[in-house]
Parts: sequence; structure tokens; C-alpha cells
Amino acid sequence: MSAYSNFETVKAEFIADHVLFVELNRPKKLNAFNPTQVFCAHNHTAREIFGVIKDDMNIRAVVLSASGRLFTAGLDLSESGLAITDGEGDVARGAFHRRRHIEDFQAAFTAIEQCDKPVIAAVHNGCFGAGVDMITACDIRYGTKDCFFCVKEVDVGLAADVGTLQRLPKVIGNNSLVRELCFTGRNLFAEEAMHCGLINKVLASKEEVVAEAIKTAKLIATKSPVAVLGTKRLLNYSRDHSVAEGLDYTVTWNAAMLNTEDIPRSMEAFVSKKPATYSKL
Amino acid sequence: MSAYSNFETVKAEFIADHVLFVELNRPKKLNAFNPTQVFCAHNHTAREIFGVIKDDMNIRAVVLSASGRLFTAGLDLSESGLAITDGEGDVARGAFHRRRHIEDFQAAFTAIEQCDKPVIAAVHNGCFGAGVDMITACDIRYGTKDCFFCVKEVDVGLAADVGTLQRLPKVIGNNSLVRELCFTGRNLFAEEAMHCGLINKVLASKEEVVAEAIKTAKLIATKSPVAVLGTKRLLNYSRDHSVAEGLDYTVTWNAAMLNTEDIPRSMEAFVSKKPATYSKL
Amino acid sequence: MSAYSNFETVKAEFIADHVLFVELNRPKKLNAFNPTQVFCAHNHTAREIFGVIKDDMNIRAVVLSASGRLFTAGLDLSESGLAITDGEGDVARGAFHRRRHIEDFQAAFTAIEQCDKPVIAAVHNGCFGAGVDMITACDIRYGTKDCFFCVKEVDVGLAADVGTLQRLPKVIGNNSLVRELCFTGRNLFAEEAMHCGLINKVLASKEEVVAEAIKTAKLIATKSPVAVLGTKRLLNYSRDHSVAEGLDYTVTWNAAMLNTEDIPRSMEAFVSKKPATYSKL
Amino acid sequence: MSAYSNFETVKAEFIADHVLFVELNRPKKLNAFNPTQVFCAHNHTAREIFGVIKDDMNIRAVVLSASGRLFTAGLDLSESGLAITDGEGDVARGAFHRRRHIEDFQAAFTAIEQCDKPVIAAVHNGCFGAGVDMITACDIRYGTKDCFFCVKEVDVGLAADVGTLQRLPKVIGNNSLVRELCFTGRNLFAEEAMHCGLINKVLASKEEVVAEAIKTAKLIATKSPVAVLGTKRLLNYSRDHSVAEGLDYTVTWNAAMLNTEDIPRSMEAFVSKKPATYSKL
Amino acid sequence: MSAYSNFETVKAEFIADHVLFVELNRPKKLNAFNPTQVFCAHNHTAREIFGVIKDDMNIRAVVLSASGRLFTAGLDLSESGLAITDGEGDVARGAFHRRRHIEDFQAAFTAIEQCDKPVIAAVHNGCFGAGVDMITACDIRYGTKDCFFCVKEVDVGLAADVGTLQRLPKVIGNNSLVRELCFTGRNLFAEEAMHCGLINKVLASKEEVVAEAIKTAKLIATKSPVAVLGTKRLLNYSRDHSVAEGLDYTVTWNAAMLNTEDIPRSMEAFVSKKPATYSKL
Amino acid sequence: MSAYSNFETVKAEFIADHVLFVELNRPKKLNAFNPTQVFCAHNHTAREIFGVIKDDMNIRAVVLSASGRLFTAGLDLSESGLAITDGEGDVARGAFHRRRHIEDFQAAFTAIEQCDKPVIAAVHNGCFGAGVDMITACDIRYGTKDCFFCVKEVDVGLAADVGTLQRLPKVIGNNSLVRELCFTGRNLFAEEAMHCGLINKVLASKEEVVAEAIKTAKLIATKSPVAVLGTKRLLNYSRDHSVAEGLDYTVTWNAAMLNTEDIPRSMEAFVSKKPATYSKL
Repeated sequence: MSAYSNFETVKAEFIADHVLFVELNRPKKLNAFNPTQVFCAHNHTAREIFGVIKDDMNIRAVVLSASGRLFTAGLDLSESGLAITDGEGDVARGAFHRRRHIEDFQAAFTAIEQCDKPVIAAVHNGCFGAGVDMITACDIRYGTKDCFFCVKEVDVGLAADVGTLQRLPKVIGNNSLVRELCFTGRNLFAEEAMHCGLINKVLASKEEVVAEAIKTAKLIATKSPVAVLGTKRLLNYSRDHSVAEGLDYTVTWNAAMLNTEDIPRSMEAFVSKKPATYSKL
Repeated sequence: MSAYSNFETVKAEFIADHVLFVELNRPKKLNAFNPTQVFCAHNHTAREIFGVIKDDMNIRAVVLSASGRLFTAGLDLSESGLAITDGEGDVARGAFHRRRHIEDFQAAFTAIEQCDKPVIAAVHNGCFGAGVDMITACDIRYGTKDCFFCVKEVDVGLAADVGTLQRLPKVIGNNSLVRELCFTGRNLFAEEAMHCGLINKVLASKEEVVAEAIKTAKLIATKSPVAVLGTKRLLNYSRDHSVAEGLDYTVTWNAAMLNTEDIPRSMEAFVSKKPATYSKL
Repeated sequence: MSAYSNFETVKAEFIADHVLFVELNRPKKLNAFNPTQVFCAHNHTAREIFGVIKDDMNIRAVVLSASGRLFTAGLDLSESGLAITDGEGDVARGAFHRRRHIEDFQAAFTAIEQCDKPVIAAVHNGCFGAGVDMITACDIRYGTKDCFFCVKEVDVGLAADVGTLQRLPKVIGNNSLVRELCFTGRNLFAEEAMHCGLINKVLASKEEVVAEAIKTAKLIATKSPVAVLGTKRLLNYSRDHSVAEGLDYTVTWNAAMLNTEDIPRSMEAFVSKKPATYSKL
Repeated sequence: MSAYSNFETVKAEFIADHVLFVELNRPKKLNAFNPTQVFCAHNHTAREIFGVIKDDMNIRAVVLSASGRLFTAGLDLSESGLAITDGEGDVARGAFHRRRHIEDFQAAFTAIEQCDKPVIAAVHNGCFGAGVDMITACDIRYGTKDCFFCVKEVDVGLAADVGTLQRLPKVIGNNSLVRELCFTGRNLFAEEAMHCGLINKVLASKEEVVAEAIKTAKLIATKSPVAVLGTKRLLNYSRDHSVAEGLDYTVTWNAAMLNTEDIPRSMEAFVSKKPATYSKL
Repeated sequence: MSAYSNFETVKAEFIADHVLFVELNRPKKLNAFNPTQVFCAHNHTAREIFGVIKDDMNIRAVVLSASGRLFTAGLDLSESGLAITDGEGDVARGAFHRRRHIEDFQAAFTAIEQCDKPVIAAVHNGCFGAGVDMITACDIRYGTKDCFFCVKEVDVGLAADVGTLQRLPKVIGNNSLVRELCFTGRNLFAEEAMHCGLINKVLASKEEVVAEAIKTAKLIATKSPVAVLGTKRLLNYSRDHSVAEGLDYTVTWNAAMLNTEDIPRSMEAFVSKKPATYSKL
Repeated sequence: MSAYSNFETVKAEFIADHVLFVELNRPKKLNAFNPTQVFCAHNHTAREIFGVIKDDMNIRAVVLSASGRLFTAGLDLSESGLAITDGEGDVARGAFHRRRHIEDFQAAFTAIEQCDKPVIAAVHNGCFGAGVDMITACDIRYGTKDCFFCVKEVDVGLAADVGTLQRLPKVIGNNSLVRELCFTGRNLFAEEAMHCGLINKVLASKEEVVAEAIKTAKLIATKSPVAVLGTKRLLNYSRDHSVAEGLDYTVTWNAAMLNTEDIPRSMEAFVSKKPATYSKL
């Protein structure tokens, strides 16, 4: 567990067997993303932590929350490097450098999608800009009744570039609302977020939304990890492929995976009405 | 019509001109899928029947229902072959055999998608596991107020592999709810199923849901089969391609199809206010 | 502005800075689409106008409305050429000609998608057939409480071929309702259209829906055009590609675009609490 | 072996352990393809036989040859149904029927690609039209010094539609020569076919080309079937996907397949310098 | 024919029935591409001419040649606008303008690919930079023994952006040689160009290469235009899609096209040994 | 330069300005790949080094050679972990572990493709198994007259899984020879490798092949890095996408890159006939 003790802007601890609780923890900065910390391995931050989570087979589900007044103010503009000017500079060379910068930032959130374990975001109050990019890379989202979401990038003079334009339409499956949100930068409040399916549940308070997320995470952690991790992989794959391609990939995946001990164990549990115990993946 | 008289676990009959009524009919087993019967042509089952339907140009719409207490319990675990162990066996050779097994099962449901005629599922009470895979391969779903859906595979220790992970997100267009359902195996009840768009209508009883499905099927059967079958093909194609690819394919399709007698017949019907009669496709 | 004064069946004028108001203006024909006019540059119509809009960097947002009793009756069947028979004719040669005809019609609506500026449709009363193809190529849709939508093509004996089958499922993200609408040709009324996300807002009257669309368009027009146009391009691209492809394209796009003066201007505006002024794109 | 004894226009026999020798055997008709026989299971022909081959795990490699004066004259025009006129007929309905006809013919050759076992074509003298479609669906091609190939379809008034336009450019990897051949219908003789890579070897006579094909087939039949069948599947998949997609699919495939007994058996054979024996797949 | 008389930098005339001879005709400038002329409709140039060719059903094959000492020096650097600096300028706004500039230039060559008629390039002496982009968009290439090709862009400080990097690897099907040529800018001489398949034939002189190209064009012009144009479309489509997608598209295409009078005419010609006459497409 | 001094099994040094010379250096083991070293960052090997190369903007071209008697014997079977048995083990859990193992090995070679700088392989004598996977990830290949290549995996009982089946067909653009090589494991000698385009040049000796590779690398290093790196990126992208997608991506790429100082510098060099100097990327 010590693997999670030395992160600066993120706290992480096991809150139950196989359930890791991760908390954005830079409340004085409203949990704004500090790119230096997000990218650099030496400072142990979000990307880093989801890399560690991917490798830690003790984890079967993750809850992502945030400390302080609001969920996150998004990118920390004071440190963002967005306003980089090419002082000495050739435009093409500047573009090469920005490529890498954006790629790294994208990778930080794609790591959530690729960490293999279901990640449940428990959002309270405001979730701005890069925060929307981040939560759309999660699997499930719950929110408080005072939560709201804002695709803020348009107000900073740029098109969102770390995931919202790709993932938000595929999460909620509706391009009409997405476009209104992205072109106007208006807030999306809890009720409408629930209606459009961005969040699955609305809870009364931050305590309750976290508790509900943990409850779901615990439930998931009781299931076969072969089944759960396979399901996440196949859902990710199928989102981005045709039905026929998804079916073919699934055949290839399950040709190996169906030969698991978890299936007889699951059936035995069903018959005996006792919970199954699954070995570590 | 005799083509539909000798199926063992499925009943089928013409309930109106051009409308075939298909009923899962293994009520003592809760309409559980028996893989042997689903795959093997000699026993005449679901896959078989949708192959026959594809070739039968008297059919213009299909209603899929089920007899007994609930819609379907899903895969019949007692006969499923899921727990196949490679007794003698090499893992790679076992994987080859499972490939074919899964491919055949997938094909049984993909046949619904590829049968050319719109298929309307009328679901009552529980629809579990492989039943969800099956109904997401249908075009339209109606349900009773006591209907519920359960992506049960996770509880058996496997990732769903006969269509749910591919089709459910594309049917309801929302990846957030889908992931909660697939990771937790919880029930999705009628109201939420209606809200998320899995079912289009909620009816009071099994009788009513079947009647409503038949009513819609009859309405579809009055339309030009050139128009309806083309629409199904193009919707299937467009779901899995970019807008530009879908438009191009549509051009190629309609370059031939617009030269049909059904268009002047339809216009004449419009002017004369008498129903059009279309010849067999 | 004179560029917009000489269209026959469409009126266009700047209704605010950077906001163009476009109105289908063939009320006696219920704004039916006249293919000759839609395609032919010499008659200056819809396709034409969106080509002009693409090139006019004074425009930052567009409202699309219609004059008269209803929004549009769709294709003008009396002039459509749908019933073209190959009198002299070889079927293959006829198909070649129809290809071009359909391609041109598709291009008229795809021009809306490709004009770079957000287009908001303000729909009142009936929107039939090709009208649905048209509005699904817009970015945002608002409607009156008496508005309704009808995928009418099936009743004319053809599969819709100018965009509905491609774009409607991706706009509302639900294949189940789409299929019911396309197979039956039934009306979709305001409330259900709002629920499924085809329209984002329901207003009491035509005046109000137009006013609301203009209000949103004005808001969008205050934003950085680099941000807004980039957002539309990237949303269009990402709709048709995997998340990974979308992210990669976004990197390449923003590697250039982040080096814009609009970002410091936006930040300055944020700090000074005065609106930013952005130069023409 | 009796499974192969009752085909009418194709002869098949085991010519060595695990090697099936298939011969087009309609010499009086110059091995022209008879569509009725090619499609209909009851007459047992080409498509049928490759379906049987797919299921017969005693086979590890196939040689495809032809009896008589030349390899094949291609489609038997006297029986082809190409000139189908829609006597009674609606153009759209005719197009539906032709769809199925073409799909069935395509499936006959795609079955070669999907039969899992490497297929080596041994071509002598002329190979016309549908013959080119057929051999490009094979894995390896050898030819006699008097062999020649002709994409004859253009001379019959149609674009080739059963595989040549898809597979020939991917077999030889050159679009320039392909286009010349397909637009002009000129003959491609042995030397040029060897140069462009359509055939891998040129032999002096029909006897020699068959002998060489059998020699290669025997060599392949000594290898691990897990390795060979997997290689064919992965080559087919990778031909049609990006490098990244191909690599990902390969990971999923070999995650199961590397756990085979064939690997230690192969290594043992390498050390002991004795041929390995692999069990049936 | 007067449609082709008023182009400034390109000459065009019918050199035989259905065969158009197009000649780059700016010999004093070594046939360098003048972007203003290439793009602008009012000056009637390459793009324009291939748009006209697409619409002119009297044309069934095109030969593309060049007057003067060499085939083309490529982009006219003195007029190219490549060195555009954003004097007043915002980098993002400059990028938007360059986008359109590059898109227009690409469209000029893509028009060759999309003009439906086979285009045969007859290359003599040097073919530099944008000339390589242009000829790879043609269908067939012949060259003189003194011809050579040079992917010159790297020496001007840019990655080739009007087609070479996309089409050259797909024309010759070899990524190894392509990369050497593109990274080093070295000349590819006739013999190596023939070996790698960039050109199909090497002729002794400019007169001979033009004569040979015309001979092939005449041959193609004797064939059914339904067959030839369909073949070009399907080859273009299949180059960019998987085999399965290509086959499916072909079915949809030929479902209409096989119902052409050209097939019985072709067969009749075959039997009667007299050339077929095909009506205009 | 010290960044390259502490690799164990690979030597690397700058052999000219901007040209890095990398040498497989495990001659006693015939340069067999040791997976532990290839994957693990702490041991600094192939993958590692290409990660360092990607970040080192002093490098503009790389030569990849090998010390000792032959180029590489491929995977070091004694250490490969191929024969991993799931002793304790669940098949599904074993498959998960093998997934990661194969992914890491693939990544080691994909790093060559993604390092941005052209990599030229100089092959002498034998290049077996994983060596073929490695060199097909390079951009250009030269070989000695005694060089030969062997897709050895089939003889070890597996389908090649670290790149050969994906990249070899796209490098040489011919699926027929590829299949013979992959199914039989036979050697491909220098002359045939040259003919099919796997290698671009054949040299007399190891010294000469290395010298020739360095000469080409030096030439490439004199070019604009904006042009060269862009070219590599666009060729990689275009190999895996349709022509239309490749063109669109190129527009987006060059919209930024054409605004580089390297273009005027290149033109100035052309006029002044003096070599251009380009600043570091």
C-alpha cells in the first residue's frame, strides 16, 4: 500500500478489499491540474497513479473523488504553458513541442481508460474544463445534487484537446447537447446531467455520493476479475469498432478466457449461495 | 407456412399478412438457450428460423415474444459447455474449439440483424444474460411494466460474448449506464429502460405488449418492402461506419433502388388516399 | 452582405454582429425542397448559401429558420425527379445518372456540416422527410411546442438517402427509437424529441424559438473563432473516428492552433472582466 | 476420405499425410465455373469443398490444380445468369436478387481464404476471369512457363465482382499493373506474373508445377498446425487492418496460443534433430 | 470539343474517338505548377479540366503528357505562396489559411482519381515534386528511357503534402524504396521505376511513349464504359478498404450495373467476332 | 553522448553530425534478443534506446547494425519465457500475463517506428525470427550479398507476434511471397530480398553495407528536420489509412509546418548553392 503514500497532489488508500480510493488533493488550488505534476513521473501524479493501478492486481475497482470545495477547476492556467510563445522561435518547431505537451496530457487521462479496473467518479460541485476531460475517461459517474459540469475550453480560446470532444459524445451518445455545451461553455447542472446520462445517479451530498460510489466499487470487487477486466477491455474496444469487429475480437479474447476457474467457482457459488472467492489476476 | 411448424423450442406463425410471430417456447426451462439447439440446423431453432425468415419474402416484419413466466433466463448453464475443461488437452487446441463455439452462438443472434426484416421484441418480466444479447440484435423493443433486464454474464465469471458489449452501447447510445449494468449485473427495470431508450414503449401486461408489437409490425408490413428492407440495411451499415462512408454506400444502394415501381405506387396511393399494394420482393 | 441578397428560395441577413439568419422562404410550397434550385449554383439556394457561409469569415454562427405555416414539407415531389424512368434506357446508365443526382442532394446538406460555423436550427410545426435530413446536419436544434418530425421517406417507397439514416442515430445516440421512426414514418412530437435529445429546448412559439436560437448564436459569436471553428471540426472528426484517432488528430490540430493570440486575449478578458475582441479568422 | 469422393466437378484426395489435392475437373468445359454447382450445397462443389476442408482437421495444407488443357476459362457464360433480364420485373427487386447471386459467388471464393489451411494454386496454361478471382483468394501461387492470366470481365461488359479488384492489388501490391490488366483485359504471362509477384515460382510443365506445389504443401504439413493456422488467420487480419490493430489482435490471439504443447515439442525436435509430431488441432 | 479550347496552361483535344489527349503546356516554365492557375476556375487549368472530363461522357480514356524539354519541374516556387509569412499575423489564423490552400491543391490532383475515366500518364525526362504527386493520382504510367522521378519536397524543407506520401506507397506497394526516395530526394530512373512498378512500360522516346499511351487508351475506349468506369471506381474504393468491405461495396454496385445492355452486346460481339458498340454513359 | 554509453547489449555512438550508429552487441549469443533486457528499463536495451533517440533532437538519422558473425539469431529461446507453463495456474490468468509480455516485446520494436528519425538497417548474414520483426520496423534496409532472412517462428510452434505478420506485407507489398516465407520458414536470400524490395541495396561486405547505410544517413541528416520527421510521421500514418484520410491528416499537419524557417532557408541554399543549416528541432 505504500506505493500510494507519496503522491503530492493526489491521495490514495485502500478503503476496502480490492477497492482503491483516489482523491484529488490540492484544495487550495481548487484541485486545478498542474501539468508539471500531471506529466512528470518524479512527482507522482494522476497519470503516474493510474499506471501503478494498472499494475496492481490487488485492485479491482477505483473511486475517484476530490477534496475541498469543488471537484476541480480544471487546468491550472497559471502554470499551464498554454500561453507558450515561440520567443526564439520557429512556428514548426513550436508545433513539435506543443505536440508532445498535448500528447502527454492526453496520456494522463487515457491511462484511466487503460488501467483495466473500473473507475467510478464521485463528483461534487463544479467540474470544469480538463475535469470534464478526466471524468469522461472514467467508466461510471455519480454526482451531488449541486454538481455541475462546464466545457470551459472555448472561453480560454481553444478547442478542448485532452478528451472531451472525443469521449463526451460517446459517453452520453448525443451530439446535440454536446455541441451546445462545447460551443457556449454553459454549465450543465445535475438534473440535466442525469437526464442525458453523463451521471448515473444524483446524491444529496458529497458524503453520500462518495459512499454510493464506494458501495458500487465494493460490489464490483466481489465479481470475478477475469470477467470484470475483460468486460472493460471489450467495452473500450467495441466503442471504437463496428459490431462485427467487436464480435470477432471478443471471440479471440474469450477463446482463452472462458477456460478460467472463475466460471466453475461462480457456478458453485450460485448453487451453494455462498460468495465466491477469486484468486488474484 | 409449414416451414415454421417443426421447430422444437420456438413457435412461429403468420399472425397477419406479411407478419410472422415468433415465440420462444421452452417455458419449463424459462426459455433458457440450449446451445445445441441454437446451433444445430437439424433441431431447427432460433438461428435456423432467422435464416428461413431471411429467405421468405412473404415476411415483412417479425415479432419476437416468449411463452411462460418470463422472457428468458438466458443461457442454459446446465447444457452450455461453458465449463468445458481441456481434459486431454492442449490449451491452444481448446481455444480453437471454443472459438468456433462462440462464433456459432454469435451467428445465431447476428442472424436477427441480418434477416433484412424489422424484428420487434416484446419483452415481459425477466430477460437475462444471453437474452439481452438477443434483444439488442432486434430493431425495436417494447416491454411490460414488470419487465427487467440483467447483463448476468459477470456473475458467471465471464465477459458477455454474444453481442451485449457490442450492441447495447449502440442501441442506447450511452456508455455510462452500460458500464454500470455490465460491471455490477444489476437489474434494469422498465422505467429506467424506457428512459435510456432500450425499450420504446412500456405496456401494462404481456398481452398488451404483444398486441402493441403486432400493431407496429402490421403498420410496417403495409409499407414498401424496397423501402423497409433498404432502410434496415442502411441503418445497420451506417451504425458501423462514418457519416461519409454511410452516405456513399447509400448512393450506391439507391442508384438501383430508386428505380422501383414502389415509388409511383406510393405516390399514387398518396394522391388517391387508398393503400398501396406492393409486389413481393 | 449583398452576397446574401439574391437567393430565390432562401432569405439571409445579418441579424447581429457575426450572426447570419437564414430562412427557408418558399412558404406557398411549404418550403419544399426544389432539387433544381438546391443543386444549381445559378439559382442560389441552400447548398450555395452554405458554401458562401463557409467562405465568409464575418460569420461566426448561423440560425436556420423557415417562413410560413410549417418548417418544411421536405422534398418537393412534384419536381423531384424521383420517379425518373429510364425511358430510352439502360438500367446501368440510369443508375449512373441517379448516383450523381443523389450525390448532389447529399452535398447540399453536408455543406451545413462543413461550413465551419455552428448552425442552430429553429424548427416550428412540421419538419418532414428531407427536412429531417437537413436539420440533423445542423449542430443544435430548438423547437416549438407544436413542432414534430417525420422520417417520411418510407411512405414514398424509398430508404432515406440524404443523411437521416446516417446522422439521426448519431445525433440522438439511440438506435431503437430511430428504427421505429424510420420503419413506421410516424411523427415524433416535441416532448419526445426533447426527451431523446433531437432538440435541446422547447419554446412556446415560433417567435420564441427563433429568439432563443439567436440568443445562443450571439453567445457563440462572442467566443474566439479559433476555438469555436476548431471545436466544430474536431467534433465532426471525432464522431466518425475512434477515441484514439480523434485524440491524435486533435494533437495535430492544436499543435498549430494553441499558438493563437486568442488565448492571451481570452485570459486577459477573464482577468479584466471585459469582453474579449477577436480578430477575423 | 469419403467426404471428398462425391463431388461432381471437383476431385479431391489425400496425396500425402495432411495434404489434400483438389482438382477442378470439368475439362470438357475448360473448367468453367458453373454457378449452380458452385453455390448449391446439394451438388457439392468448390464452395462446399472448402467448407468441408475448414472442418477437417486432418488437413494441414491444400493444393489446388485443374485437369485438362487449361486451368480455367472462368465463368461459364452459357449458364451464368449474368444476362438475367427482369422480364416481369421491377428494377429494385431485380437488384435484390442479383445481390444474393453475387454474394453467393463471392462466398465460394472467400471460403478459400477462410478455410484456415494454406492453399497453394498450381496454375497451368490459361486462367481467365473468375479463375483470377479464385487464385487470388489462395495463399501461394505457382505457375507453368506457359501459364497466363486474364482479367476478362471487362470484355464481358462488367466490373469484376468476385474478388479480383479487391485481392489482386493486395496480392501483388502494385496498383499500376493491376489497373492496366483490369482496364484492357490483356494477358499477363508467366515471366511478368513472376516479376510482379502474382506467382512465386515458374516451372517447366504442369507435372512439375503440381509436384512443386505438393512439395511445399508437404513441408507446411510438417509444421505445428497451431503455428500455421494462426499465421494464416493473422495474415488475413493484418492485411485488412492498420499495423497497430494487427499487433493488438495478435496479442489477444497469442495470449492463448503460446500456451501450446507445440512449442516445447518444437524445441525438443530442434534439440534432438528429430521431426516433431503434432496432435490434431 | 470547344470545352477544351480555352485553357491557358493545358492543351486538350480528342485524338481519337472517346480519347482525350491532355498536355501540360507551359514549356518555358518547365511545366511548373502555378497554384493560382491550378485552383482558379476562371483560368481553366488542371483541376478544372478534370472536372470537365468527369462530366464529359464522350470521353472514355485520357492520356496525360507534357510539352517541352521535361515533364514537369513541379511546383512553381516563384509563385507558390509556400513562403507565406504571417506578417500581420496570428499563427492559428495563418494555419487556417494554409489549410484551405493545401486542400485546394490536393483537390486538383484528386480530381484525376475521381474523374471516372482511366488516365494514362506518358512521362518523358524529369518529373519533379508535385509532378510525382500528380502522376501517382493517374491510373497507369509509361515512361521514356530517360525519364526520372524525384520526390523533391524534402529539399524545399517540407513533407510532400499533395499526394505522394499517400499514393506512391499504394501505387508501387513497397514502403522501403518509397522511404529512401522521400527522405533523400534522390532521382529514381527509368529502369528502377519499371522494376518497382511505378511505370509499366519504358519506351525509347517521347514520341513512342505518347504513342504507346494513346494505343492503350484507344484499347480501353473500345470497352464497355459501364465496365471500365465501374472498374475504376471499385479499384479506388478497394484500395482504401478491407477485402470484406470491398466485396460488399461491389455487390451493391453490381446489383444495379449487371442489368446493363452492355453485357449482351459484349457477348454478341464475342460470338459474332465483330466489335461491340456501346452507347454513351 | 553519455546517454548512450551504458547499454549492455547495444552499443551506440555518434558517427557523424546528427547520425547515431547503433549496434546489436551480444555477439557470443549471436545477438539473440534477451527479453528481460529488451523490456526492462533498468538494463537499457533496444526499446530503451529508441525511446532515448526519440527525445534526442541532436539525432536526425540512425543506422542499425550488428556485431559478430551474423545480424541476429532472433529471440533467445533459452531465456524467452515462451515455454511458460501455468504451473499453479489458471489459463485465463496465464493469458493475462502473456498479454503483457507480448505487448512489451511489440513495444520494443514499435519504438523504432515511432522514434521520428529515419532508421536504416544494415544487415549482414543471417537475420532470424524476431530480427525480421525488428528490421521491418525500420525505414530502409540494405544487405550484404550473403545476407538472408528467415521468418523462423513457425518452426518454434507459434505465429510470429512481434510485427512480421503486420509489417512485412506492407514493406514489400506482396502477400504471396510473404505467405510462402511465413508458412515454410525458408530462407530468403539477398537477391530475392532485393527483387521483392525488402532490401533496397545489396553490398559486397559488412563493411560496405554499413558504409552505405551511413552515407545515406548522412545525406538525410543534411535535410531539414521539419521535412524529414514530418515525412516519416506522414508515411507511417498514410500506410495505415485510406488516401483520403492521409490527405486530410497531411493538411492538418502542414498547416502548421509550412510556416517554418526551413523553407526560406532551403530556397536560399538552392539559389546560393551553399548547403543550408537548420536549427535543432
